[in-house]
Amino acid sequence: MSVRTTMKDRTVRAREVLARCDALANFSEDANSLRRTFLSPPMHNCHTAVAGWLKSLGVSTKIDAAGNIRGVYPGMDSASPRILIGSHLDTVPNAGKYDGILGVVLAIALLEELEGKRFPFAIEVIGFSEEEGVRFGVPFIGSRALTGRFDEELLGRRDRNGISVREAIQQFGLDEKRISEAALANDVLGYLEFHIEQGPVLEKLGRQLGVVETLVGQTRLALRFLGRANHSGTTPMDARRDALAAAAEWIVAAESYALKTHELVATIGSIEAKPGATNVIPGEVRLSLDIRHRSDEVRTRAARELTELAEAIARKRGLCSQWNSLLEQNAVHLDDFLTGQIEAAIRSSGCEPHRMTSGAGHDAMILAEKVPAAMIFLRSPGGISHDPAEAVLVEDAEKAIEAGVRLLDGLASSQEFLGRKNRA
Amino acid sequence: MSVRTTMKDRTVRAREVLARCDALANFSEDANSLRRTFLSPPMHNCHTAVAGWLKSLGVSTKIDAAGNIRGVYPGMDSASPRILIGSHLDTVPNAGKYDGILGVVLAIALLEELEGKRFPFAIEVIGFSEEEGVRFGVPFIGSRALTGRFDEELLGRRDRNGISVREAIQQFGLDEKRISEAALANDVLGYLEFHIEQGPVLEKLGRQLGVVETLVGQTRLALRFLGRANHSGTTPMDARRDALAAAAEWIVAAESYALKTHELVATIGSIEAKPGATNVIPGEVRLSLDIRHRSDEVRTRAARELTELAEAIARKRGLCSQWNSLLEQNAVHLDDFLTGQIEAAIRSSGCEPHRMTSGAGHDAMILAEKVPAAMIFLRSPGGISHDPAEAVLVEDAEKAIEAGVRLLDGLASSQEFLGRKNRA
Repeated sequence: MSVRTTMKDRTVRAREVLARCDALANFSEDANSLRRTFLSPPMHNCHTAVAGWLKSLGVSTKIDAAGNIRGVYPGMDSASPRILIGSHLDTVPNAGKYDGILGVVLAIALLEELEGKRFPFAIEVIGFSEEEGVRFGVPFIGSRALTGRFDEELLGRRDRNGISVREAIQQFGLDEKRISEAALANDVLGYLEFHIEQGPVLEKLGRQLGVVETLVGQTRLALRFLGRANHSGTTPMDARRDALAAAAEWIVAAESYALKTHELVATIGSIEAKPGATNVIPGEVRLSLDIRHRSDEVRTRAARELTELAEAIARKRGLCSQWNSLLEQNAVHLDDFLTGQIEAAIRSSGCEPHRMTSGAGHDAMILAEKVPAAMIFLRSPGGISHDPAEAVLVEDAEKAIEAGVRLLDGLASSQEFLGRKNRA
Repeated sequence: MSVRTTMKDRTVRAREVLARCDALANFSEDANSLRRTFLSPPMHNCHTAVAGWLKSLGVSTKIDAAGNIRGVYPGMDSASPRILIGSHLDTVPNAGKYDGILGVVLAIALLEELEGKRFPFAIEVIGFSEEEGVRFGVPFIGSRALTGRFDEELLGRRDRNGISVREAIQQFGLDEKRISEAALANDVLGYLEFHIEQGPVLEKLGRQLGVVETLVGQTRLALRFLGRANHSGTTPMDARRDALAAAAEWIVAAESYALKTHELVATIGSIEAKPGATNVIPGEVRLSLDIRHRSDEVRTRAARELTELAEAIARKRGLCSQWNSLLEQNAVHLDDFLTGQIEAAIRSSGCEPHRMTSGAGHDAMILAEKVPAAMIFLRSPGGISHDPAEAVLVEDAEKAIEAGVRLLDGLASSQEFLGRKNRA
């Protein structure tokens, strides 16, 4: 295995990776914070920057009809199969600079590290146009186009300004009738994604890099507690049917349930009490419940038991409870072979890898439906994400580049990998 | 003691009382529900109706500069002192028909029951212009004018449409410079107010009428729990600083504290979680706390202990808590002599009286600063108030009239009462 640059060179490159993320953060819809949603005007500037970095490597880029920027670093010959390396270029409002972006910029840095070396596979760098679901309320629009899951009906969906996906595509200078051309051909050996962890696990363990085995499944429920609004001064405590007191009892119980269930996370992120006046006992409370676990069985059992718990608490208090499901997404297991190769590459770069579960959804989850997919996580200082305080350490970016190069070298010499059939 | 009408006549009169409340409910600012705030146009219609009923008794009315309608039923001679009987004519939005209104209409019915009989005191019927605090966010504007507590600065306060109290008074055809003339003279022996209970206590006890000993004191606090917002999927349960989980634990503890403290009521009526997204752990929660008790000591101790509890829960979870006081109103004890007289009058009308605490504020609370004040509660079916389902039973209105007549007869023959000095 050859390591083509010195340690010092790689530190410089890692700094450059972070500087490029900083530079891309200037392309924002908002004046004083980063927001770059699907096909928004600043995405043009972002594409121009990414295309410029790739052009220096002799790699030309195109924007597919779903707005993904794609450039192919050729393999040993024109018949070489390809691997994909990428992540997304869109952001949430008031975003950090690394979520998604880092994975695209690291892919470019990896190509730079190769210094022209060719593998028995081509490497297609992809910057997905849409992962966060901010503009149209639907996530993964970019990666769905690659797996042929860009539904026709999505084109009619409108953003807050009444602009449809179709119009947004046209306004960006693209042709929505060519979206099917964005779909993957059958020459893809795998998809690799670098991403910040967005959580505190690696930092807590003192590890720089993690390898994702599974992306958790997710259930989202809307719940209601229905009691009776009444006067806060004239209604004795034992004559109340207080919807907020019931909801609070359930929130505490849900937290306790999740704490007792290994690796389960349960979050009540939104709550509304009606009528919401200081001097009126709440007659109705609406809440959200977000449950995630890598085991679909554990997650669906948790959803059932937590709604039963809500019913029991409501019944005991003379209230009623209602719920309905907003999302049921099963867990996605990433490719075992690639995961093992990543683990070995991290270890050979001098880091202790951590096999982990991703609590968030990622483009890799969508790609995994069609091609072997794998993910490498970089430690998130403070576990902070979706916030301007989001950060990446230079030494972690450096190790990610090193592990990435070792991974590519390893895959290039693996007959098992090169002999794989594409599922696309 | 003479009872001047037969039981049948009094039932008819009680029905008429409820019918008059129904009639006044037609004078509303809203098309399909009752809302009649301070000096709103429909208050003119309400005054016209009240003035008409009093005029049939030979009682002429005037509107004082604070918008209170007042009419004096003369005593035995022009030097007779007076007692006041009344309540308020304004309402909350989406109001019931009886809160306040009933006390004014019952006062008129009492005069009708007298059939011209004169007492050694005059009876001034008062329909207060403002008790609920809806239009200007300040309650008791009407009764404050009688006690000389109508602050000059109140005149500059504006409603949602930017109209000041001064302008509202002028637009109603009144002269704000004459508000001081609304203040009570020193000939007032006492204030008597009939009001619906607005709670379930009398109904639970199977009693028709109650006599109020004390109006509870009230503390209103605004509380905040400050944690850290984070990703609902990537943040393990044991690494969270969830402001809503902390708030929920505190809400449950506050309810439990109030249930264990005799007669204390504690209400969390409003709650807001930020950022309030399904997939984000709440980093901040704001809540209201409304605590009431007839003992100021019990109430202030409860406020202290509940805020300490919030601090302890926050600290345990690595959060912080903050609070500030929005209202501190001490309990008001009504006049012992009048309360005893009311109790005797209720009993002699064939009902078992119930001495009780009012959990709500009333005009009597304001009048009590200047004159001996007392209140009679009528049972609230279902304990419902501030809602179109608010109701009064005919048989309870009938007993209220009978008890009222017996009370007046009793006071007229009480040298202790007639010899009292006005504190005004």
